[in-house]
Amino acid sequence: MIQGKLGTLVGRSSGYIESLPAPVRRRVAGLKGIQQEHSKLEAEFQEEVLELEKKYFAKYTPLYQKRSSIVNGAAEPTDEEVEAGKQDDEDEENEDADKEEAEEDEKKETSTEPMNGIPEFWLSAMKNLGTLAELITDKDEPALRLITDIRMEYLDRPGFRLIFEFPENDFFTNKTITKTYFYQEESGYGGDFIYDHAEGDTIDWKAGKDLTVRIESKKQRNKSKIL
Amino acid sequence: MIQGKLGTLVGRSSGYIESLPAPVRRRVAGLKGIQQEHSKLEAEFQEEVLELEKKYFAKYTPLYQKRSSIVNGAAEPTDEEVEAGKQDDEDEENEDADKEEAEEDEKKETSTEPMNGIPEFWLSAMKNLGTLAELITDKDEPALRLITDIRMEYLDRPGFRLIFEFPENDFFTNKTITKTYFYQEESGYGGDFIYDHAEGDTIDWKAGKDLTVRIESKKQRNKSKIL
Repeated sequence: MIQGKLGTLVGRSSGYIESLPAPVRRRVAGLKGIQQEHSKLEAEFQEEVLELEKKYFAKYTPLYQKRSSIVNGAAEPTDEEVEAGKQDDEDEENEDADKEEAEEDEKKETSTEPMNGIPEFWLSAMKNLGTLAELITDKDEPALRLITDIRMEYLDRPGFRLIFEFPENDFFTNKTITKTYFYQEESGYGGDFIYDHAEGDTIDWKAGKDLTVRIESKKQRNKSKIL
Repeated sequence: MIQGKLGTLVGRSSGYIESLPAPVRRRVAGLKGIQQEHSKLEAEFQEEVLELEKKYFAKYTPLYQKRSSIVNGAAEPTDEEVEAGKQDDEDEENEDADKEEAEEDEKKETSTEPMNGIPEFWLSAMKNLGTLAELITDKDEPALRLITDIRMEYLDRPGFRLIFEFPENDFFTNKTITKTYFYQEESGYGGDFIYDHAEGDTIDWKAGKDLTVRIESKKQRNKSKIL
């Protein structure tokens, strides 16, 4: 938790070090040499953390697959999963309110058509994440509400890829749209991975459906220029 | 790098979920149950990261001990350590400037008394760390420049202890002053350790030397009140 912070205390220079007598400056240079050994160990540590992240990612994956099946209506959750989820809610909510809700449900059910899976799950999820919500405009929503899955995968080099999965739709022909985040091969001071750049797929918009094009009805200020 | 973020997307509620028909709400409850399994795995992941931190802390410790010996004049760095440290500098600096410096050193050496270790190493380090520098007042410096070592140790429960080591001094009788940071036994959403509270040692100030007491020369506004 703290050793990274202690590490950053060493190795900074202002005019102070230069003003010291030579034997002291030699010791400071020696500490910098020792700090290099420390940095090598920190880079090894970050490599091991990444391996651990990958190990756990493999453990999370079946849960993500279950989620995807439920969201898209390919499977229903088990009673155990539902009970565990309800107990989670009851920690926060009032039980009486739950009962009233249940009665209300019965009324709703008779008046509502059957729904497959959880409609608009990913759009709702994204709109619940503050920083992401700010980026979503009304114009984006018709496409984003179609998302059937968002997945991540690690690259062979430092970095990861986000995969957005879509069904057949009116906007573009892509079945998936991915964005890949590349990190530098050399780790930084303290062993951290350093972000390099990201690359996104080209979206194959259907004719007239490009949501990134702003259609403006411009008034001609000076018609004579056209003529 | 990213799975923690994906995890936080699930489990938030506004009025939206309550407005859904019962079969959909059952699926959402099921996802919350699945999310609980995810959270358990995340807590295991954080435990494993902590074990990894402890493993590397053991690897860093000999380097910290070497640093302490050099800082306090108990040992000199090896030529290899000095060379490695100088090469580090040369990546940033101009070689000619280095030569000039070396010539200047010789002059300095004849006019300077020998110095033990690296004087004021820890005060300099702390003043190079922005957030810490802001907390250090002129009044603190005479005590802080005496620090011979700053160490960290893990607790048997979640948390760590900072140990500040002092020589015999005019201000207090403590040989070490420690501050211990306690984290909660139960990990939070996403498996993170949650800070609970910190406890600091009592400082045994010598008579009249308490640096935390502000001595003000108050004017008596109404002398009659004393009589």
